[in-house]
Formats: sequence, structure tokens, C-alpha cells
Amino acid sequence: MNEFEFIDSIKSKYLLNKVGDDCAVLPKNAENDLLVTADLLVEDIDFRLEWTTPEFLGHKALAVSLSDIAAMGGTPKWAMLSLGLPENLWKNSGFLNEFYLGWTTLANDLGVELIGGDVSRSTDKLVLDSIVGGEVAKGKAIFRSGAKPGDRIYVTGSLGGSAGGLNLLENGSRFDPTLTNGQCRLILKQLKPSPHRQTANWLRTLDNVSAMIDISDGISSDLLHVCLESRVGAKIYVDRLPIDQNLAAVFPSEACLDMALNGGEDFELLFTLTSQPTDAFPGTLIGEITPGPSEVLLVRDGKTEHLSPKGYRHF
Amino acid sequence: MNEFEFIDSIKSKYLLNKVGDDCAVLPKNAENDLLVTADLLVEDIDFRLEWTTPEFLGHKALAVSLSDIAAMGGTPKWAMLSLGLPENLWKNSGFLNEFYLGWTTLANDLGVELIGGDVSRSTDKLVLDSIVGGEVAKGKAIFRSGAKPGDRIYVTGSLGGSAGGLNLLENGSRFDPTLTNGQCRLILKQLKPSPHRQTANWLRTLDNVSAMIDISDGISSDLLHVCLESRVGAKIYVDRLPIDQNLAAVFPSEACLDMALNGGEDFELLFTLTSQPTDAFPGTLIGEITPGPSEVLLVRDGKTEHLSPKGYRHF
Repeated sequence: MNEFEFIDSIKSKYLLNKVGDDCAVLPKNAENDLLVTADLLVEDIDFRLEWTTPEFLGHKALAVSLSDIAAMGGTPKWAMLSLGLPENLWKNSGFLNEFYLGWTTLANDLGVELIGGDVSRSTDKLVLDSIVGGEVAKGKAIFRSGAKPGDRIYVTGSLGGSAGGLNLLENGSRFDPTLTNGQCRLILKQLKPSPHRQTANWLRTLDNVSAMIDISDGISSDLLHVCLESRVGAKIYVDRLPIDQNLAAVFPSEACLDMALNGGEDFELLFTLTSQPTDAFPGTLIGEITPGPSEVLLVRDGKTEHLSPKGYRHF
Repeated sequence: MNEFEFIDSIKSKYLLNKVGDDCAVLPKNAENDLLVTADLLVEDIDFRLEWTTPEFLGHKALAVSLSDIAAMGGTPKWAMLSLGLPENLWKNSGFLNEFYLGWTTLANDLGVELIGGDVSRSTDKLVLDSIVGGEVAKGKAIFRSGAKPGDRIYVTGSLGGSAGGLNLLENGSRFDPTLTNGQCRLILKQLKPSPHRQTANWLRTLDNVSAMIDISDGISSDLLHVCLESRVGAKIYVDRLPIDQNLAAVFPSEACLDMALNGGEDFELLFTLTSQPTDAFPGTLIGEITPGPSEVLLVRDGKTEHLSPKGYRHF
């Protein structure tokens, strides 16, 4: 059982109909619904202190949850932060100051207010739980379950950069002046992901978005989530994938494609449109929704193959 | 710097006016405000797996947050649960099933819906972040800051039982048939705290509650929080304290008093009333609010002494 199967089992056992999308959606008032999401980051599983800076980590802890709010078509409003801190980080006041600087700089930029959280000691590892609340116009939240056959599939930005940055870090590179510009960008994509504020704002103005998810586990996993929830299939085209341009200078082309398909933490938005967009559009058309079964097909050099979900699994 | 001073410093540095009470209070709609709280529980800091059962732990993870909602005069509505799980607990499906059974039994009892959360692997320790959302009638949330000189100070239930249970566990007792009834009750107070639903409901009907807090760190700390936030003093009387009746059979009287004053996790409610209650009342009058300075005085055998906050500190 992996974590997705576990969440599905709990959802079905206890009849939880709000669990399983990027955010839970709750009625708020006559105009808006409330969105809530939580993201747990555990040291040495989800991040390594020797690879990042406290400021980047503060930024990322918030950015991953902002991405979930954006993936529902919502606007972030408030946040809570639960910190489990080993004693050495507690005593190092520089760490906490820089962490909150990174967190707060991003929060202020998006108008998000810190309203609470918790602080506990931990035995040895740093643990962060980021909780963000947001709003979406009543009944207008965009779920994973809304895709229909014939819908076009788009992604924002580029794919695989975060996995490329992770690979560089795993192989000993650090964010420092010895790196090329391209390598810096890959590592920043991993350590300091963008919240895509303008794209998210723009997507909120569209009335033809049928389904959306953020790419946190890799497109092969996340597009499959959309297919399973929407009970449809998907076909995507290798030559249309917006593979991060900084990858090619560092990795062979097959590795670049693997990172674009299976690399986690790009925190781009994957969404489906019921009709062609008219204006200049901050997304790349990568394929289309098919009647099913619920699987992702990959078209490459004219041949169609089944794409297995190979994104990151905790278990 | 302890965690309370840290939270104060972040609050003042970033001008966070919603941080620092039992819950954050946010506008919801014309009738109600939204309450949100988060409680992080870390293995071997906040609980020990060998002292509890998965079912008790699931219950407690939710109960601690329900207590925060009750302390604002609110009603719990929904919850999220972020779990950081070491691999051995993940593979032990019995653990997760029993944990969710404990959690869900309490949640169903109070009409709380699980709406989301997160699951991550952790390197070796179990980490739980419990997030609960609730409601309170618009403008009616009861803060720590509302106590006025002359107000009467009350507590629900009894004090020190949870600390007594913790002491028994620390000294090798376990929740099993070898214990006396009284010892069982002390250990249950520690491992499976009551959410005090009826008392919380009753308190919501009163219109003369000026301040409230839940006793999570010990009354010497928690009453001081009320004093500091309300800019008042407090005087409490040793002979009025509702010391847990099960303590006397196990501990010397001085230890019982210490547990009642400084023991954490009783999760009783401490509140102040602007006038005397008229009906039969599920609380004990223990003292009164004074003009200040912001300190707690303890009256014992006719003598008044300063009561230092000795409740649990993470740092």
C-alpha cells in the first residue's frame, strides 16, 4: 500500500467526501467557499538542511501549500505553521529568524496572514506542517474530478527542473557561485519553488477550466490522479512537453524526459480546458482527455505507450 | 527564550494580531466566525508509544485541539490530520487502523468531519499535527484577554490528574488490570483526555464569561497567560482547588498540590465570570481577578505567595 492507496482506504472506510483533492472545500458565506490544505515536511525525507538555507526552507514550506490553493482556482488568505524543532535549531536563533524571513517575505508578497500554529520540541529532526486557508468564489472550486473526454490538457511553466535540481544536490552541488546560471535555476526550482501568482490569477479569470491539480509528485502520477477522479483517460505527447530548458546542458536527453514525466515538486499547474483558449496563454498544450480507461498514454515518435506513475512515493 | 517568548517575539516582529490565543478567529459569514487551531505531537517528546495504545493516541490527537476550540466558546466542525510515519508503523496496518478508530470515534461523537491532511514518511519518530476548525457566534469568541478586576476565576473538572497519570507511567505503571481504579483514572486522564463536551456546551450558553483558556501547560502557566493578555493579576486559594481525588491515594499531599498547580495536559477549562452564576454550575470557584500587576498570587493558610509558572516548557 502506498500513501495514495492509504488515503483512498481511509476515505472509503469513513465515507470522507472532502478528502483527496489538493484542498478541502467548505461552505463559507454567500459569496465564497473556504479552501484548506496541509503539507507536512520532514527533515531528511522531504528536505535536507545541508542542501538548503533556512530562508529557502521557509519560502518552500509556504509555497507548497500555496500551490494547492492555486490548484483549486483559489486565493490564499491565511496560514498556520506547526514546527517540531530539535534543540540545536531552537538555540540557533539565526536559523529561526532566517526561516521566518523566507516564509514572511513570500506571505507578504501574496497577502497571506500568519494566524497561528504550534511549536514543539522534537528529538532530532526538524518537522514543518504548513496549513493554508484560502477562498474561491462559491461553487467555483476546480476539482481533479471535472475532466471530460475531448478536454485539452495544459501545464504551466516547465517540467523536470526541480528533479534536475534535486539530482545536482544529491550529487554534491550546492547553491553557490561555482554553478552555471542554468544549474542555479534548477536548484532554485527545487529549493525555492515559485508560487506562480500571476498564472494562478489568470487561471481564475477563465470559465472553461474543467479540472486542475498541482504537479507535486510528477506528471505521470498527477495526471493519473485526474484520470482516476474524473473516470477518463489521458493522452500526452512527448514532443509537446515543456521540458525545463536548463536540463539539457547537464543531463542526457532520456534523463531529461524522465525528470519531466516523473520528477516531483515542480509545483506547476496541470489543468484541462473544455475549449481552446483565445488569448495569449501562460500554459502549454500537452495532450487531450480520452474516454478511458483511467490511464495515461504517452505518444512518442508516433507510437503510443502506457505511462506508469513513477513519481515520488513516501511508502 | 521559551516557546511562549518565541511566539510573542514573532507576533510582535511581524505584527500578527491573530496569533497567541487558543485558536485564531477569522470572519466567516453574517452569523459566525471561524476558529482554527493546530497542535503538533512529537513521539518521545509529547507522547511515548510504549505508554499508550494507538487508539488512545488517535483520541488524544483530536482531543487536544477540541479543547482549544472549547476554550474560545466554539463548536468544532472539521479537522485535518498530518501524519509523519516511520516505516515500521506504516507497515503495521494494525497501528493505523486502531489510531484512526480512536480518532474517528471521538470525531463522530462530536460531529467533527475529517476533511484532509497529509501523510509523509519520517525517519524514525511518529509526528502528528492535528488541525481543527470550528465556529463561534459572530463576535462572541472568548479570548484570554477579556478578564477584568473583580471577575471570578473558575475551573471545570479537577486538576493534576493528568500529571499524576504521567508520573505513574514514568515510574513503570501501565494501563492494565494490575492498577487500582483510581490509578486507571489518572492514567486515562493523561492518555485519553475528555473533550468535556457537555461543559463546553453549557459554557456557550452563558453571557458573563469574560476570558477563557484551556489548561494544557498547568494552571500556574495558563492563568498567567490570562493575566498577561488581560493586563490584570489573579489570586487563587489553595483550599478551593479541585485537586483530582485519585491523587491522594498515590502521592503525598505536597506532590498533589504541585501537580494541580503545575501539571500539564489536564485539558480542563479555566474561565472568568463577570458575575456570580445562578444555576447549578459545572465549575469550581478558585479565586478572583485583581487590578494587577500581571502575576498569580496563591493564598495558602492565610498567607499570600507569588506563584511562578512551572508548567511544561518545550524549551
